[in-house]
Amino acid sequence: MAVYTRLTKEEIENHLKNYPLGKLVDFKEIIDGIDNSNFIIDTEKGRFILTIFESRINKKELPFFINFKLHLANKGICCPRPVLNNLGESIADLKGKKSSIVSFLSGATLKPQEDGYYSSITAQHCFEIGKVLAELHGAAIDFEMSRANELSVAGFRNLFSRFEQLVESYQKGLCDEILETLSFLEQNWKSALPQIAVHADLFPDNVFFSQDGKVSGVIDFYFAADDILIYDFAITANAWCFDEKNNFKEEKFIKLMEGYNEVRKFSVEELGFLEIAFLAAATRFLLTRLHDMFFTAKDSLVKVKNPQEYLAKMRYFRSKIS
Amino acid sequence: MAVYTRLTKEEIENHLKNYPLGKLVDFKEIIDGIDNSNFIIDTEKGRFILTIFESRINKKELPFFINFKLHLANKGICCPRPVLNNLGESIADLKGKKSSIVSFLSGATLKPQEDGYYSSITAQHCFEIGKVLAELHGAAIDFEMSRANELSVAGFRNLFSRFEQLVESYQKGLCDEILETLSFLEQNWKSALPQIAVHADLFPDNVFFSQDGKVSGVIDFYFAADDILIYDFAITANAWCFDEKNNFKEEKFIKLMEGYNEVRKFSVEELGFLEIAFLAAATRFLLTRLHDMFFTAKDSLVKVKNPQEYLAKMRYFRSKIS
Repeated sequence: MAVYTRLTKEEIENHLKNYPLGKLVDFKEIIDGIDNSNFIIDTEKGRFILTIFESRINKKELPFFINFKLHLANKGICCPRPVLNNLGESIADLKGKKSSIVSFLSGATLKPQEDGYYSSITAQHCFEIGKVLAELHGAAIDFEMSRANELSVAGFRNLFSRFEQLVESYQKGLCDEILETLSFLEQNWKSALPQIAVHADLFPDNVFFSQDGKVSGVIDFYFAADDILIYDFAITANAWCFDEKNNFKEEKFIKLMEGYNEVRKFSVEELGFLEIAFLAAATRFLLTRLHDMFFTAKDSLVKVKNPQEYLAKMRYFRSKIS
Repeated sequence: MAVYTRLTKEEIENHLKNYPLGKLVDFKEIIDGIDNSNFIIDTEKGRFILTIFESRINKKELPFFINFKLHLANKGICCPRPVLNNLGESIADLKGKKSSIVSFLSGATLKPQEDGYYSSITAQHCFEIGKVLAELHGAAIDFEMSRANELSVAGFRNLFSRFEQLVESYQKGLCDEILETLSFLEQNWKSALPQIAVHADLFPDNVFFSQDGKVSGVIDFYFAADDILIYDFAITANAWCFDEKNNFKEEKFIKLMEGYNEVRKFSVEELGFLEIAFLAAATRFLLTRLHDMFFTAKDSLVKVKNPQEYLAKMRYFRSKIS
């Protein structure tokens, strides 16, 4: 059960008394969300986002997410910057739940076509994304908190077990295909490669661009976790470097890598692991999309994403490896 | 449980042998969907959409939806036109499910802002929407099939009962507020007003505009049902004539009405019922959004819409009436 929390003007005004943000000028709710309640609030000090954390996010993990953003913002990354309240806290109670206030970022995401694909992604976007990803990695290196990544190879089998018995009737042969891929990944995964806190979900809907085509914001750090950097790079490449026919676009990938290399470079060992990281990244999104497809009520009106996109990507990388 | 069906090139080629569309040139899956599996297929005769109907749509109701589109297309409405196969059928079996092929429509939907609101809606858009809604109504008048509307006043209490016990812990006082509104609507609803098959979901994501700002397509007829025309008009006005602060925009509403009046006119009795129709329309979307919020798994990654937008609209119209 997902839930949103509502806030009245008075409740926001009272809450703001604990923050050095001056008086409330205006506010509105953000109506599209995944699992948190979000409000745009304008105060005498500018525009901010007030978030109330709802069910899906584990309260114990909130300090990791919020402090990661604060750490990155302090390093100059264009991510939402948590605002500390008068007690110096970045997380505060509000209506019996945990909440935070962060800076508002300008710019806008690219918009998907009617079919759900981001056909407007150019090689230049990929270059900028490569750069910002490398900046994120560079800034995260000395972040001191840690969080295990459930959505990495070690967690795949547990996730898959939740819907394994539903897969075969959805698509013949898919269950064995996934099991075989999981075995391959488990046998070949190199968790000893450089590992830090990574974003792990740098998809087009989490990146704002300004009018000049530069990245003006990176949002949604709620999948951030410790993982090997090359896996984060592969997740990003999977999201940005395929066309709407699920064909890998070499020129976009090259630009992504060029952008990354402008800021920092992967080791030879990391690069040698890229194909397996790509396979793992494709498998991660295939599994979560299958999960969401199976566990969305059939009379729900919410938008579910077709898992086939990531099945095609998983197959593409599997064929390159074997 | 939602499910998508996959199709191979060969399966689509085989299926196309039953249609007067020539050979398959190309195809791709549409990855965003609500509950059907959709494929863009390019054939020697042009571009089409192949749909496999999944769980949520009742098979028995499919002829209503498909024939309604065919009826409207034959009257010159820019909706997807079902293609008849070589047996003259608009619905065919495919992989053990029901399927249809319809014409592809050009143009694009307006895109929502990051907060989910369609801030780019202009008064001119509303004028065009009013016109196309009136054209839909005019074209539907002699459609002979019928389908009861579950999502109208007579069905609200049944829908509400599915989550009534969850509402109070979500928002104090909301349960009584909804019950009071349902009673008011049930006592005042005039089902004797002119009633035909209406779209009942003419939201911005269901309307394509061409570059010149004219409507180039109306899609998603799966909520179409018999209802009073002024209710359909109120649903449309609720979707197009509010700003992102949930303030009613009089000038947009006037333009919507002007557009409608260019094509056909409501009676004085219908217009006198507009405020109650507005209240019913707001209540309908409040109820379905609450439903989807409560019944989406808390670890799902799908996007749920915040019900507060339509609670604000329901309150606005309730305050105007009492």
